[in-house]
Amino acid sequence: MLYIILIMKYYSYEQFKIDTKKIIQKSPQIDAILGIARGGLTLSHALAEGLDLREVQTLRTELYDNTTKRNTITIIDTTTFTSKQKVLVVDDIADSGETLNVVMQHLKHKYPQTTFISATLFYKTSSSYEPDIWINEASQWIEFFWEKDFN
Amino acid sequence: MLYIILIMKYYSYEQFKIDTKKIIQKSPQIDAILGIARGGLTLSHALAEGLDLREVQTLRTELYDNTTKRNTITIIDTTTFTSKQKVLVVDDIADSGETLNVVMQHLKHKYPQTTFISATLFYKTSSSYEPDIWINEASQWIEFFWEKDFN
Repeated sequence: MLYIILIMKYYSYEQFKIDTKKIIQKSPQIDAILGIARGGLTLSHALAEGLDLREVQTLRTELYDNTTKRNTITIIDTTTFTSKQKVLVVDDIADSGETLNVVMQHLKHKYPQTTFISATLFYKTSSSYEPDIWINEASQWIEFFWEKDFN
Repeated sequence: MLYIILIMKYYSYEQFKIDTKKIIQKSPQIDAILGIARGGLTLSHALAEGLDLREVQTLRTELYDNTTKRNTITIIDTTTFTSKQKVLVVDDIADSGETLNVVMQHLKHKYPQTTFISATLFYKTSSSYEPDIWINEASQWIEFFWEKDFN
């Protein structure tokens, strides 16, 4: 028999409040926020309020599980940042780092005149992408309050 | 001297948890969620997690203050719901009701094949629009936790 023990760490709203304020302190002057759905939605809202920015846009990604090739990430992007100078791109965690890696490359290519700065609450040192701003190192599986509290 | 006394009611994350679960109980089967930014962002995330729906899109509105005419609401809509049957449209509050009124009309016109159901945490009886689902009557000014907790 195989036992898999998964150590989960519950990430509470109280901790989120503290960490979001830390991101606000570290953030440069920005014109807009882009939240990566779903994980970055609550954070993008909190940052927009804390930074007093009306402009929040979102972007979705889909992960396709290919049997022949490695997984591919499709970006469903309907953003319009043409006149923006600096945009903060937020997600909950840089885990494998693949999503943020692909999204940041895509944004820089789509908007060559705009500077994109990435921010996450958690970062795994094994991630292929290190966000410009991150608050906690993720050493175990994180269960975010939004994943747990509404079931 | 003129004194204006504004009675504000703080709306906590704890209360939000309870109310979001009530919306989940009242919600019919849906294919996607549309959050109206900024007020509906945290709610759209919570509902997507609670209803186990990956598809969350957002929409922004801008209010222009015209001196000659009444205020006009501009909808910045980059949604793509063409293949969806039923979409839940969420915002924090139906206050004057103008935003939801305009957004719902716009969506029904843009996607005639899709059914849109509106849901808010608060509803003012003086609102020009009554959401299909609402949880609390707003009798005073509501200060949402996302407006207060990150400053």
